Amino acid sequence: MPDEQARTVTIAAIAAAAGVSVPTVSRVLNGRSDVAPHTRQRVEQLLRDHGYQRRGGRPPGRARLVDLVFNDLDSPWAVEIIRGVEEAAHAAGVGTVVTAIHRRASDAREWLDNLGARASDGAILVTSDLDPDLHSELRSLHVPAVVVDPAGVPGLDVPTIGVTNWAGGLSATEHLTGLGHRRIAFVAGLPTLWSSRARLDGYRAGLETAGLPYDPELVVEGDFGYASGAGAADRLLTLAHPPTAVFAANDQMALGVYEGIRRRGMRVPEDVSVVGFDDLPEARWSSPPLTTVHQPLVEMGMLAVRTVLRMVDGDSIESPRVELATRLVVRDSTARPDARSDGRTRP
Amino acid sequence: MPDEQARTVTIAAIAAAAGVSVPTVSRVLNGRSDVAPHTRQRVEQLLRDHGYQRRGGRPPGRARLVDLVFNDLDSPWAVEIIRGVEEAAHAAGVGTVVTAIHRRASDAREWLDNLGARASDGAILVTSDLDPDLHSELRSLHVPAVVVDPAGVPGLDVPTIGVTNWAGGLSATEHLTGLGHRRIAFVAGLPTLWSSRARLDGYRAGLETAGLPYDPELVVEGDFGYASGAGAADRLLTLAHPPTAVFAANDQMALGVYEGIRRRGMRVPEDVSVVGFDDLPEARWSSPPLTTVHQPLVEMGMLAVRTVLRMVDGDSIESPRVELATRLVVRDSTARPDARSDGRTRP
Repeated sequence: MPDEQARTVTIAAIAAAAGVSVPTVSRVLNGRSDVAPHTRQRVEQLLRDHGYQRRGGRPPGRARLVDLVFNDLDSPWAVEIIRGVEEAAHAAGVGTVVTAIHRRASDAREWLDNLGARASDGAILVTSDLDPDLHSELRSLHVPAVVVDPAGVPGLDVPTIGVTNWAGGLSATEHLTGLGHRRIAFVAGLPTLWSSRARLDGYRAGLETAGLPYDPELVVEGDFGYASGAGAADRLLTLAHPPTAVFAANDQMALGVYEGIRRRGMRVPEDVSVVGFDDLPEARWSSPPLTTVHQPLVEMGMLAVRTVLRMVDGDSIESPRVELATRLVVRDSTARPDARSDGRTRP
Repeated sequence: MPDEQARTVTIAAIAAAAGVSVPTVSRVLNGRSDVAPHTRQRVEQLLRDHGYQRRGGRPPGRARLVDLVFNDLDSPWAVEIIRGVEEAAHAAGVGTVVTAIHRRASDAREWLDNLGARASDGAILVTSDLDPDLHSELRSLHVPAVVVDPAGVPGLDVPTIGVTNWAGGLSATEHLTGLGHRRIAFVAGLPTLWSSRARLDGYRAGLETAGLPYDPELVVEGDFGYASGAGAADRLLTLAHPPTAVFAANDQMALGVYEGIRRRGMRVPEDVSVVGFDDLPEARWSSPPLTTVHQPLVEMGMLAVRTVLRMVDGDSIESPRVELATRLVVRDSTARPDARSDGRTRP
């Protein structure tokens, strides 16, 4: 085929001009990462200078961009994931395109149009409820995708990265039982998310390990928002036999629990201990600083980039889902239940 | 010139095929925004199909990307600016590439290399202390730049977008004098930043308006971090004549002031009123929710995108610096100084 031959001749000429081997030029053309950055830049420059045209019209080499897609950027942990993705992408010489699609099909369509116009090496989709059509569109554009999914929905047809929600719920509860708490409340997250269920089950397992009964009266459903945490505290602290500790399924609800406690003229941790889940920056800036379960959001973002770039290289991914470990960070919001004798007196 | 003629003929052919005028095709080629998206896409497709080559080798039309560059992404207001930029860019059919350069020349170099390899329509640089060389490099790459600069350094040779720091400091102080406070402390930010100086001067103007003396004992220097706010509260509350209100030059220090007050067994706002500056999400999630000066960070990001896209279109920018208005948001951390009779009793 003359067309194929012309391509080969050109590659050989480029290789000679660059002082590298023909396979090295091929690796650059195929966007592989096992080429020194300096060599890649020289070869790409020569390809441009010689007007080398790939079949399909795409510019030689990679797009040098990965796409990071959120439903919304006002999620408090969005910036943590952006930090991890940007850091790993930057280290690989790749730019990070951040998009919010607001759960709207029209926004997803505009993003795909933009992506199609400028090309992308891979997509990192944050959260689980993205339109399945989007995945098939990405496939047809030959853009590999990875899902970063702190919420933890199984069953997607792409590699996903999550955290050990169940183990996190267990460690928070064991911390409180270890301090001597016997009446431990749980403020649950949205029941439709698997992460909520896993954290609740971790809480139940923690009670069981300590020989404590599961009391449904001590479990209040929230929606992951601050106001629902404050409301849950109101309800829990008016019980005939109120809890001495509250474990909230995320930091925002835990901070709402603080507010519910404050409004009743009570104090954290003297009257009630509080534990959160996420370890957002605001957990360190709360008063008192919040004991919470750390989610490695930055590391999840970094792993997502490395995974998607390996897919670009054609490597196979070992496991369709990876869960990174959570760990408990103990700060000043938890204490022994007998830290103050009138700890359970309501004003 | 035959080359120029060949170009003209091609543009005419494209215009005929697309059913539009020659000037419309020119507008698409020049990346102007006054072309309907549908028309632009059709023309760009035809340009690609006909193998139209611009002089300079850039693909026809825009890169459809803007670059948003931070020193660090762990600044608490970074995500607010990302939200604004992403929203306005998305609405214009442009993707947002987010980069952190960590004040390192090597990271800035890698970003410029990446930008050069993939092209960009414009750059939005957040904060003021970016290397001047970077601005000249962007100029040589023909990438227009806008600086979003909440810190407020004048004298840059590019359009900058800031906020009214002085007026914000004034409004916070007038709120406190209006409640009846006479001993109002100020926790200042880094003295090297113009924003710190402007907020301090606004505080002084607010005291003066209320006929109150400026007492240097009530002004403590912080560094915009939580710990410095807690330390400032410690120092202020041990004064022989302590303040009844503290205005901190940012929210993080205000939350640190909360913690200093809590550690002394005192309460916000019963014992001490607190006002912050920024209105980050954590201001709403604090306990009590924080009265603070709102910075329109999302709007600053949106305006930055619109400004840089106008520069792409060749429009002239009216003013080298625009400052958006701050506004006071009153929540639950401020009250009259006589809200509790023992308000100034130290434990």
